[in-house]
Order: sequence, then structure tokens, then C-alpha cells
Amino acid sequence: MKDRLFIQEVSVRDGFQIEPRFIPTEDKIRLINALSLTGLSKIEVTSFTSPRAIPALADAEVVMCEIDRIPGVIYAALVPNARGCERALDCKVDEINVFMSASASHNLANLRMTPEQSLAQFRAIAAQATGHAMLNASLSTAFGCPFEGAVPPELVLQRVGEFADMGMQGVSLCDTTGMANPTQVAHLCEAVLARWPELTVTVHFHDTRGMGLANALAAWQTGIRHFDASLGGLGGCPYAPGASGNVCTEDLVHMFQAMGCQTGVDLERLLAAAATLPALVGHELPGQLLKAGPSTRLHPLPQQA
Amino acid sequence: MKDRLFIQEVSVRDGFQIEPRFIPTEDKIRLINALSLTGLSKIEVTSFTSPRAIPALADAEVVMCEIDRIPGVIYAALVPNARGCERALDCKVDEINVFMSASASHNLANLRMTPEQSLAQFRAIAAQATGHAMLNASLSTAFGCPFEGAVPPELVLQRVGEFADMGMQGVSLCDTTGMANPTQVAHLCEAVLARWPELTVTVHFHDTRGMGLANALAAWQTGIRHFDASLGGLGGCPYAPGASGNVCTEDLVHMFQAMGCQTGVDLERLLAAAATLPALVGHELPGQLLKAGPSTRLHPLPQQA
Repeated sequence: MKDRLFIQEVSVRDGFQIEPRFIPTEDKIRLINALSLTGLSKIEVTSFTSPRAIPALADAEVVMCEIDRIPGVIYAALVPNARGCERALDCKVDEINVFMSASASHNLANLRMTPEQSLAQFRAIAAQATGHAMLNASLSTAFGCPFEGAVPPELVLQRVGEFADMGMQGVSLCDTTGMANPTQVAHLCEAVLARWPELTVTVHFHDTRGMGLANALAAWQTGIRHFDASLGGLGGCPYAPGASGNVCTEDLVHMFQAMGCQTGVDLERLLAAAATLPALVGHELPGQLLKAGPSTRLHPLPQQA
Repeated sequence: MKDRLFIQEVSVRDGFQIEPRFIPTEDKIRLINALSLTGLSKIEVTSFTSPRAIPALADAEVVMCEIDRIPGVIYAALVPNARGCERALDCKVDEINVFMSASASHNLANLRMTPEQSLAQFRAIAAQATGHAMLNASLSTAFGCPFEGAVPPELVLQRVGEFADMGMQGVSLCDTTGMANPTQVAHLCEAVLARWPELTVTVHFHDTRGMGLANALAAWQTGIRHFDASLGGLGGCPYAPGASGNVCTEDLVHMFQAMGCQTGVDLERLLAAAATLPALVGHELPGQLLKAGPSTRLHPLPQQA
């Protein structure tokens, strides 16, 4: 089973978070329940952040407590601080996902903290959550920073080592603004997998510059088996209006299935869930598979005139 | 220089051919002249087909004869038959590109010929053009057919062998409707490169299901160095309304440059040419780089409140 992939859905948190219109709580629950039955291995359900900071996810408790939790699916939540951790643990989340940026300027702009402050908070949350939930640390701008440019791989490796030392079971390498390229991805993933074979390493790619699936392929070739993705490709990039956001779940699953990989995902069910999304958010989505259908879908011969 | 890539532009033929509004001849010439100065290694300028069949390219002679031809750039044209070959040779094209489908049903639907009839026509055109122009044979549906589904790799290899025996210098493996996946691409490209090391092998991918750049990466990893692509991702797929068409030239060049490959292309000049395209065709284009900019483009830090 070492070749089995684990597809992790982020649309309902990462995508909904930046939608201008509030997605009704019951619609969120309905979508998550549908996604739970598709074979996805993890769903990032919500973020236990301040409702004033992110009103789109102000219903975090209700959503997390009222979804139908299917055995075998990991229900995760993003947690920014001790208060969020407490709220998440009260809702009995399976996994707490903490996050910081590899680049100091992005961490400061996004979280108003220095990297050292973020690391201290990670340690506090780890102490608080250990024994109650699994822990994953997400490292934003791991492949490049929109403010600073290149991010030294040594810095990324240092952070991953610090996360491992805190007892995090998982680490996500996030290409927050779609700056990664396949060669870089291969080098960084190889280095992380070689040094921390016990860590569950997730890659989180954005398709901002069209390289999302190419980067996923490069990561897979090094042995990465955990992939974040977003239904319909929901989610955008604040620095690239109109550009694609997260890698699209159904496009990613389709590629790996076409390559003969075991994804555990029922693509037809996933596509059915994706088909409900444009009406929910009120706009088209960048995912291709919803428009084109799987490559196994045949077409009738045109009538000859 | 074995790692140098050759980027071949198809937008002005493959893209313009299906645009509903006629692109004025002087605009075509202006765009091709701009593209000629970007470092692209080949431009498929037009198609010498019947003006009644493809009115969008009815100005083939004028375009081919009036563009500024830059030494080192190959100016190619699609040629469907003996009459088209004569017209193309009269315009002194550098390369004649003949085309047929790997699958019989697609060949019949698209060209109204059996594969044997297409091969006979290839032989006639090869005899007519040898000594006057280089010859390339494009094999459509080489990675799958929208009517028949899977196309046996043995059939593709048989056709490539027949093309080589006719004296074609180049062969293009075309994923006409975006059905290829990276594993399949790797196997087929490896087989073709191993058996015909003297052939120039081009891959022509579509991004219909989001796998365009992943397939290009897989082909590159096997040693393929010639890539067709279309400015802005111009071109669509008749079987997938709204889906992307050809792999986008600037996205492809950007990925390979970010990986450290020599593409020979000046990305800024290419982007400047791409930026003129939406106004020319009157609609948005699927290419990402026009929206997001290169990954080297930095952004100012947001003002802290």
C-alpha cells in the first residue's frame, strides 16, 4: 500500500475563507458530508480563528460538530492560537493544523508575528493538544515568497526540523502563491523525506502559474503521497487577480488515477460534489474536469454531411 | 546544447483556425513578426487548406509571403494535400507539416480519409516536397481518441516507423483532445526516442484536463526537447466547451526556465506578444502567466493597519 495516495480536501476552509459571500452553514455541512463519502482521506473542515478576522468561517463550531464524521476520514481544522486550539479540541477535531510562513515578511504580513513568535505559539499549541488530537504544521511560502522571492531550502529544512522536534506528526509544504517549479519541488521533497522518514509530508500546491499538476507529479516522483487540493480549484491568490488558486481536487485525482495510482477516491462522486459548487459560490471555477469530463468519457462520431 | 529546448508556436494556425471572427491579415503578420523576435524556434504560420474549408486562414499565401523571416526561425505550414503542398512550396515555407490521426474514426471524421489514404497522400507530398522543404508528420489522437478511447501504443509506433521510412525529418505526437497522462507520455516518448534517435520528436499537448504542463514535464524527463505550444493557450477543444485548449506557450516557457532549462526564449518579449492577443481575438485566454506574472515578480508588502 506504499503507493496509495492520500488526497486532502481544503476547499471548505481555504476556498470558502476568501469567498465574498457567506456560504450558509447548512450548505457547508451538506458539502462536507458529500465529500466525506468520496474517499478523500482528510478534510480541512474550518478554521478556529476569530469570527471578526474571518467572518466567512464564523460558524466553525456548528460546522465541525454537526457534520457526519465517517470513520477513516480525518477531520482537521486550522488553529491560529491557544483560544482557537481550545475551541477546536472542544469540537473533538481529529487533527489540528497550525501554520506559519517560511519567509519572515510574509509571516509578519499574514500573522503579525515574527517567526520566533509563531514557533513559540506552535510549542504552546502542541503542549495543549498532544494526546487530544493529531498535529500538523503547515509552512506557507515554502517554495517562494511574493515579497522576498526565493526562500532558501535550508530555512525550510530548519523549520521542518523544529516542527518534528515539537512532536508534529505531519508537515505541509505550501506553495502559497504558486511560485514552485518541478525541479525545486523534487529537490526539497527529496531532502525532507530523506531526513524525516517518520513525518507525514503533505504538499500543498497552487496553480497560479499553471504548474500545479506538474509540481504534484514531481513531488509524487520523489515519494510524496499526501496532497492537498481544493474542489473545483476553489481559492485564489491575492497577488494575481483572475489567476487560479489551489490545485483542483478532481483534476489531481483524475491525473493520478489515469497514471494508474490508487487514490482511494471515487471520481464520479467527487465530480458530483464539484458540480454543486459553482451555484454555492455564485461563480465559475477554474477546474478543468468539470468542463471536459474524465479522459475515459467518449464522444459520438460526428454525423457526416 | 543537448539540453536546449525548442519551443514551437502554433497559435497563429491552430488557434486562429477556430476563432469565430476573422483575424485581419495585417494583425496576423504583426503578431508573427513579434513572435519571430522572441526566440521561438519554429512558428506554424498557417495552413494551406481550402479557403472554403477554413476561411479563417484563407490568407495563407499573403501571410506566409509578407512576414519578416528571421534567420534561425523555422516557418512551417500545415499542408493537407498536393494542391496545398504546391501553394506552400510556392511561398517557400521552411517546413511542411502533414497530419493524420492515429485512430481510424478520428481520421475519417476529421479528414474523410482512411489511414491508408492518408499515408498514400503523405508519400505523395513527401515526393513532391523533398529537396524543397523539411518534412514533419503530425499524428493526432496519439494518446487517445475522443471516439474510440485508448489508442494502442503499437499503432502509434507503427505510424512513426512509416513516417520515418518516408523520409520525414520530424514527427509530432499530438494529444488532440487532452487525454494523455504523464505515465503514458513517458512510456510512449521513451519508446519513440529509443527506436528512432534520428527523428526530431515533438510533443503537442492540450490542457483540456489540466495535465498539459505535467505531460510536458514527463516528456522532457524522457529526453524530448521539442514542444508545441500556443500563445495565451489559444485554441479549444470541440468536445469540451469552455475547457482549455493548447498548452500555453508563456506558461510552458516559464516552467522550463524556472527549472533552469535553456529555452532560447525571451519571456518578457513573449509576454508582451501574448498581452496583445485578447484584444485581437476579442476574448480572455486561459494562460495563467498573463494574469499572475512570472514567479520572479515580487509584490510590495501590504501596509499594516
